[in-house]
Amino acid sequence: MSDVPGDGIDLADLPLREDLRGRSPYGAPQLDVPVRLNTNENPYPPPPELVADVAEAVREAAESLHRYPDRDATALREDLAAYLTGATGVGLSAANLWAANGSNEVLQQVLQAFGGPGRTALGFTPSYSMHPILSAGTRTEWVPMPRQDDFSLDPVRAARAVADKQPDVVFVTSPNNPTGQSVTPAGLRAILQAAPGVVVVDEAYAEFSAQPSAVELIADHPSKLIVSRTMSKAFAFAGGRLGYLAAAPAVIDALLLVRLPYHLSVLTQAAARAALRHAEATLGSVRALAAERDRVVESLRDMGFAPVPSDANFVLFGTFDDPHRAWQRYLDNEVLVRDIGVPGQLRVTIGTPAENDAFLAASKSVTEEISQ
Amino acid sequence: MSDVPGDGIDLADLPLREDLRGRSPYGAPQLDVPVRLNTNENPYPPPPELVADVAEAVREAAESLHRYPDRDATALREDLAAYLTGATGVGLSAANLWAANGSNEVLQQVLQAFGGPGRTALGFTPSYSMHPILSAGTRTEWVPMPRQDDFSLDPVRAARAVADKQPDVVFVTSPNNPTGQSVTPAGLRAILQAAPGVVVVDEAYAEFSAQPSAVELIADHPSKLIVSRTMSKAFAFAGGRLGYLAAAPAVIDALLLVRLPYHLSVLTQAAARAALRHAEATLGSVRALAAERDRVVESLRDMGFAPVPSDANFVLFGTFDDPHRAWQRYLDNEVLVRDIGVPGQLRVTIGTPAENDAFLAASKSVTEEISQ
Repeated sequence: MSDVPGDGIDLADLPLREDLRGRSPYGAPQLDVPVRLNTNENPYPPPPELVADVAEAVREAAESLHRYPDRDATALREDLAAYLTGATGVGLSAANLWAANGSNEVLQQVLQAFGGPGRTALGFTPSYSMHPILSAGTRTEWVPMPRQDDFSLDPVRAARAVADKQPDVVFVTSPNNPTGQSVTPAGLRAILQAAPGVVVVDEAYAEFSAQPSAVELIADHPSKLIVSRTMSKAFAFAGGRLGYLAAAPAVIDALLLVRLPYHLSVLTQAAARAALRHAEATLGSVRALAAERDRVVESLRDMGFAPVPSDANFVLFGTFDDPHRAWQRYLDNEVLVRDIGVPGQLRVTIGTPAENDAFLAASKSVTEEISQ
Repeated sequence: MSDVPGDGIDLADLPLREDLRGRSPYGAPQLDVPVRLNTNENPYPPPPELVADVAEAVREAAESLHRYPDRDATALREDLAAYLTGATGVGLSAANLWAANGSNEVLQQVLQAFGGPGRTALGFTPSYSMHPILSAGTRTEWVPMPRQDDFSLDPVRAARAVADKQPDVVFVTSPNNPTGQSVTPAGLRAILQAAPGVVVVDEAYAEFSAQPSAVELIADHPSKLIVSRTMSKAFAFAGGRLGYLAAAPAVIDALLLVRLPYHLSVLTQAAARAALRHAEATLGSVRALAAERDRVVESLRDMGFAPVPSDANFVLFGTFDDPHRAWQRYLDNEVLVRDIGVPGQLRVTIGTPAENDAFLAASKSVTEEISQ
């Protein structure tokens, strides 16, 4: 008998919502493995000058920890607007920007405002697994549409599916996670024209992509287009939890109706602003990672794997008769990759050259698992 | 014509959910006034050694900003368990604790797990205004029950209302915001016995209260009782956004099903842990604030106001024919109090002695606004 209060009961004893019964919590295993290539993080630690700047910014912010933060995170949104303007060439203001604790919270707010009970959200699968989970969490009916057999998205077919299903929210992930391909602006225009509701272009991996950002389409589709982004990937700020989006100012007004007040701490606001001041240095790793990605793809192909061409910092590859067994074989070789539930496939994040070498060495011993 | 992309449209042009149309964003005005006594913050800035410790903890954490945080915040939950065990005398473990970005997010997760469409949440009004807003945000039907005329809660009548309405979630705020009164453990037992679902005892202001915490009731009501807390108030950590709750371990398992993965940043986890190490110093202000509260109540009474006896760090007082006009009169005197929408009443947060003096001086000039 444990001494912990309430330890005698389990989930079945609780008045839990019926639709949650039998579910498991989301999440990749957080295992302590030498080479972790499973969550699409940037492998390069923040440079010392960024760490120092974040610490100093937080020290200053901590002096007013007893006060609530700026509820609307205005200064941070100005900085994000400046960064995104520089990155895309589209002149954005703070009124176009919104931020929250990771893009998960940003997308949850979008679904609270534009989805919800009686409404639907459509996505092109396989894609980011949180889209259906966030839809379920906001009681938005999830409508999955399959991508092409090669995991690419055919915009004409996609637009037709949108016109057919009339979803309130459409998710287009570009570059797509876990498959790596991007959608062109022309392709997005076709989907936007067909959509009766909002279209969320999830650009979590945009900095790695050769395609222009969808933000250039906001002016033409102000009541429909929402472009979500994150500082977790290229920015090497996964631990800081800062997701954001760009849209017409009216969309931001809508999100103010559903956001939890004071959702972004003074620490998050200060640290993200400090990290943005070092954007150039941090993003310096992006080109190196793209080159490593191309090397990994080529090496995998040489070994007989079938990697999917990628515009991001990860590669989907196969083909495995039993991906979970192959995943375990990588783990036995001290390399953690991701089994994302796509038949025949595994996903590997691009790491440092040494990590990629370790992954490729492990891949050699896993080749026997693949279908030839 | 503005150059901001998408600036030509407004909320009415968006495919917003119908139930959000016409709403205004939540929140007290964030005005730059010399004496701000409107959001129940602790008026004392964090001591320099806490600021230094938070900065150092964040500097260390920032070195791994490129990695996702511990998704389950285990170390922080251990520290919170140790703090709450010390504060209440009830032996709690990390398995009893859960944390999120402010108690708003904690309560939202509770409603996602135990409320939602087709379910109801009952509260005793006037109380914390976020409870109905969070219910609406999770599409949980809100059932308001009035408190007594003197704003106290009669547990027998409350239990009867719960037995009658059969809500899935009951909110009991103790001490109650904005009225200040607490509920005894015996009163909570009566409500727990009547409740068919979960009972959330919102103890945001518990450190200011003379009543024992409801956590001592978890062992007897493991499938029903959830005790929510915050570091925003007594802990002087409003800017850090750290809310938490204590419950049976199975309740934490349920919250894992609805929480956004990686919801708590490494910065938040590190800073909150640092702040908890200084709990004794920070909470030293609690006794001083309680004494100031009693002085403010007495002075208000002497001036002809009718303050409600308070067990927290704020005081509800009246009676005003036009509270909003009285609120403006305080503002004209450079004192920001809160018009919380309770007929005849305003709420003032207890500040430093100098701030309270300024408030009392302003009150003198506002006495003509009160009904005698």
